[in-house]
Amino acid sequence: MADPTRADLSERVVISVDAMGGDQGPAAVVAGIANSAQKNPKIAFIVHGPEEELGPLVARRKLSDRCEIRDVRDVVKMDDKPGNVMRHGQGTSMWSAIEAVRNGEAEVCVSCGNTGALMLLSVVRLRKLPGVNRPAIACLWPSRNPGGFNVMLDVGADISADAHDLLQYALMGMSYARNGLELERPRVGVLNLGTEDHKGRPELKEAADLIEAAAPAAQFDYVGFVEGGDIPSDRVDVIVTDGFTGNVALKTGEGTATLIRDFLKQAFKATPLSRIAALLAVTSLRRLTKRIDPRRVNGGVFLGLNGTVVKSHGSADATGVSAAIKLAFKLAESRFTERLAARVASAPAPRQDAGQQEVKSGQAG
Amino acid sequence: MADPTRADLSERVVISVDAMGGDQGPAAVVAGIANSAQKNPKIAFIVHGPEEELGPLVARRKLSDRCEIRDVRDVVKMDDKPGNVMRHGQGTSMWSAIEAVRNGEAEVCVSCGNTGALMLLSVVRLRKLPGVNRPAIACLWPSRNPGGFNVMLDVGADISADAHDLLQYALMGMSYARNGLELERPRVGVLNLGTEDHKGRPELKEAADLIEAAAPAAQFDYVGFVEGGDIPSDRVDVIVTDGFTGNVALKTGEGTATLIRDFLKQAFKATPLSRIAALLAVTSLRRLTKRIDPRRVNGGVFLGLNGTVVKSHGSADATGVSAAIKLAFKLAESRFTERLAARVASAPAPRQDAGQQEVKSGQAG
Repeated sequence: MADPTRADLSERVVISVDAMGGDQGPAAVVAGIANSAQKNPKIAFIVHGPEEELGPLVARRKLSDRCEIRDVRDVVKMDDKPGNVMRHGQGTSMWSAIEAVRNGEAEVCVSCGNTGALMLLSVVRLRKLPGVNRPAIACLWPSRNPGGFNVMLDVGADISADAHDLLQYALMGMSYARNGLELERPRVGVLNLGTEDHKGRPELKEAADLIEAAAPAAQFDYVGFVEGGDIPSDRVDVIVTDGFTGNVALKTGEGTATLIRDFLKQAFKATPLSRIAALLAVTSLRRLTKRIDPRRVNGGVFLGLNGTVVKSHGSADATGVSAAIKLAFKLAESRFTERLAARVASAPAPRQDAGQQEVKSGQAG
Repeated sequence: MADPTRADLSERVVISVDAMGGDQGPAAVVAGIANSAQKNPKIAFIVHGPEEELGPLVARRKLSDRCEIRDVRDVVKMDDKPGNVMRHGQGTSMWSAIEAVRNGEAEVCVSCGNTGALMLLSVVRLRKLPGVNRPAIACLWPSRNPGGFNVMLDVGADISADAHDLLQYALMGMSYARNGLELERPRVGVLNLGTEDHKGRPELKEAADLIEAAAPAAQFDYVGFVEGGDIPSDRVDVIVTDGFTGNVALKTGEGTATLIRDFLKQAFKATPLSRIAALLAVTSLRRLTKRIDPRRVNGGVFLGLNGTVVKSHGSADATGVSAAIKLAFKLAESRFTERLAARVASAPAPRQDAGQQEVKSGQAG
């Protein structure tokens, strides 16, 4: 919680924001903070980066009463090797932003920086939850679900995952869906080549058995294997996969959406009639564009740590940063970290009790 | 080549079509044949399935002079296990359709049936090209390229691939791009988590080295690692990946395109003004819809066999079947099978001469 001497922050949910390291620089990050601050009076910020850069930006946006600046000199660059950042990164805005969560000053950390470095620093400084082998990055995916989104994980924390890792992803993703998307009883599926039980890699079949066995106690529904085409569907809420496959799927979906958006723009410039049509349909088209805008679902969440970290796209602009902050606020408000920890703690231990279903039914985490 | 006694077929390119096994039944397949026959007088067909079903369909479409019917009783079902089909499938339309390519009556086989069974039968009956370890399925992907499409492989023939398999995919995909897309000097990339050289699985780095070394002799450009977001881009023409990842990416892209198309329809029904707009923009929108319609790029091509097999979507309708036939015709006309065989034969042998670049520079295959 916030330092009680800072009365202006003490009543609010504090989000720790790494202002540096994104492609668009600190101005875009502070603009995103300003958007969120205006929409939601319950958020306060600790912003990390060089005072001489952040000070004027914060002052210009009139955020001085909502933002505390932590003056740090160094910045993690996109091409820095994670190992180097871990050894020499104490003076960076990323390190400082994570540290504020570690020491309890802030609830959630948000950064647009280098994913690999952010993950490694988060794991080293916040440490893994008891029982978690591999932390994961979960993303939200536009879908036909009533809530409009699915959760997919892992989308790039780790390049491989065994059956027990996939079980943990299922439990963590389910907890995220419950707290982040307010789904009482999430439907969980395992991403595979096809929906038939006999398809795919052996570890996926083993994972499917483990997840199915864990479903009753953890109060979710296991829907079986799902395909790439099911990711945006209403068949499933939580899609479990390894980080390599998830990352490719995520970027493929984003790339496809962007391609179609560009084609759509071209189509409406093609003829004079279509230009008039674009004017008439402007509201509907704006709603559509918003619905498929990757910036709106900006924010991969690191799951499995003692503290929540939201990774915003490196290229995020103010809209994207604001979306990541909104997600961070929602997770902080739902006490997501504590619930997730309880959920993982109640899962069967690796490799010994796959068949055993007497999992303690704790709080719905 | 066609039996010289069938004078009506002898001047034409003969495509062997499995009329059964698709989700929409033989009527959709024969309708697709009729579309293609009308557009292209140079194609003749051998159609495989029960005479009593196909005879009336062919007669109604007035295709009797373009289609020879091979009367076979059995059908491979979508949930048949490939191994069973191999042991007991001699009487099926799928088997018969492949056999027509095997014995030289037809140039290319087209089927909407069970992918696993079609692949296994194709491998067993047509046999792998000398030097090919794993055959692959290549698909076309709508992209920003001048030609409008990229090639991706493997999209599901095999669930894994080692570095040498990925090299063969690169060579086969490059040959396909040259003959199917008419690209003189295709750009080849390896799908990975990120574009940085240090990212990803070890076999991908090894594959990248092999492919880079093979590029000069095989006359293509190696562009390095590509991400999911690059699949629809103008950075690359041939995307090399294992069958698991490729299948997930393909279906994710298709699912995303379908989702957005549905959102677009909803947007144009949202208000009276947007309904008028849809009328005004009808031509532009129809062009857009066509551009992102997965049916237009229907047809995964099996590469690495003594004979070309085009796998159409199981759910293909007449438009989809016709697209697959068009692709089959194009590949037959370019003598793709022979060129691909020459290309693969010129590649370095597995695991011994990765560093050696004195590959014979034969015809551009």
